[in-house]
Amino acid sequence: MPIDTRHPREIRQDIRNGKLTGITAGLGQNYVQANLAVLPRDHAYDFLLFCQRNPRPCPLLEVTDVGSPEPVGVAPGADLRTDIPRYRIYKDGVLADEVTDATPYWRDDLVAFLLGCSFTFEWALLDAGIRLWHVEQGKNVAMWRTSTPCRPAGVFHGPMVVSMRPIAAAHLAKAVTASARFPGAHGAPVHVGDPAAIGITDITRPDWGDAQEFTRGDVPVFWACGVTPQAVALASRPPFMITHSPGHMFITDLPNSALSAI
Amino acid sequence: MPIDTRHPREIRQDIRNGKLTGITAGLGQNYVQANLAVLPRDHAYDFLLFCQRNPRPCPLLEVTDVGSPEPVGVAPGADLRTDIPRYRIYKDGVLADEVTDATPYWRDDLVAFLLGCSFTFEWALLDAGIRLWHVEQGKNVAMWRTSTPCRPAGVFHGPMVVSMRPIAAAHLAKAVTASARFPGAHGAPVHVGDPAAIGITDITRPDWGDAQEFTRGDVPVFWACGVTPQAVALASRPPFMITHSPGHMFITDLPNSALSAI
Repeated sequence: MPIDTRHPREIRQDIRNGKLTGITAGLGQNYVQANLAVLPRDHAYDFLLFCQRNPRPCPLLEVTDVGSPEPVGVAPGADLRTDIPRYRIYKDGVLADEVTDATPYWRDDLVAFLLGCSFTFEWALLDAGIRLWHVEQGKNVAMWRTSTPCRPAGVFHGPMVVSMRPIAAAHLAKAVTASARFPGAHGAPVHVGDPAAIGITDITRPDWGDAQEFTRGDVPVFWACGVTPQAVALASRPPFMITHSPGHMFITDLPNSALSAI
Repeated sequence: MPIDTRHPREIRQDIRNGKLTGITAGLGQNYVQANLAVLPRDHAYDFLLFCQRNPRPCPLLEVTDVGSPEPVGVAPGADLRTDIPRYRIYKDGVLADEVTDATPYWRDDLVAFLLGCSFTFEWALLDAGIRLWHVEQGKNVAMWRTSTPCRPAGVFHGPMVVSMRPIAAAHLAKAVTASARFPGAHGAPVHVGDPAAIGITDITRPDWGDAQEFTRGDVPVFWACGVTPQAVALASRPPFMITHSPGHMFITDLPNSALSAI
């Protein structure tokens, strides 16, 4: 995977100018990348409360002021309408458009939410010497809807979505402690082992992403996944919503280490 | 200090029945106690956002559904109108009443917020073998408004309030790591050492609480304080607000260890 080690400000400038339009894996080495969800003010309270009540799948990093596209807490000067390579526009919960510049869709009543993503804890796992099959193979992780309900908030309710990575049994403890340090990026696993215990019937057929390959002695380890808030929000069919396109994340000015709880 | 080791459910029952009316220090040993702030729905979004943006002074443990006095996440079955020994009722930011039962003041548009408090990290400090002068002397901690602004949210803005404890220099590192594990109870210190660096001009004259006594070699250590959200909320003069009376906290069903990030 090619690595772009420039500061996020310079990378976001290239994204804003249309020079970078692809997925953001490998861009802004060691900087926190974030999921985007934009909702009208009318839905913002329920969504904020949903994130507060479900911090593992919904680790909130930033909430903009109503109408402002600037995430002053994590990337002052950035513009969330232009600094993400690709956006999805939803109307009444249905995909209506996919664009590289969301400016024409911006409104004065919108609130943008940025949520931590798995890149940060995967960096911590790799740093701890843990091999990740999907990274080595250039694949996506495997994701499932579980039988674990999120705690509802207003109009938002639904099951937790998890991502799964096969981890060598000898590395299980390290995988837990390394990821637990980053509650702002989903934190520790929500489940280790038997997929059926969280309602997953076929470990070879994920709901999203790629099936993972297990080596002898690997154990399936499940982390809460940032797909949860998007899936939950869209299921409530909000009249209007903007998200990043899968893999096309917002790159913040925060180094991954800034999210460490300890 | 007398210790009541019964389960919080039994203690709350005695509070509800008027058998316990004093401060809650020493009640529900090793269970999380919480600050209460109740605001009308119109102010709830800004307050929730203020807490999200300022997690050190405002560690949110629970937000009730609009109109519901039941904190289902931290104490299912409890009633926030009756299960706290003493309440303060504010109108337009001014103290209007102090009561032992807030039921007559409850309204269908109210949202209750419970925030972590220093009892949890003080338990962690004591558990780590660190002596706390104010605990040994039966005094309150010392608290100050600082020159550090909170990040504003809507109508809410103001400086961070901190509490200060003298810590032996040899125990500084342990005091940091022990409290850092509890981000749900203010987490690690926000400042260690020189009071002037955070705008405190006289360490012998706190804005709230009791002046602390320093032993030779003690260093002043400052933690973000739960007085911050109350002070900030009242400064905005909300038309209506209910809080706990100082020292009269809500006792949750969560053991202190449940707030440990690691």
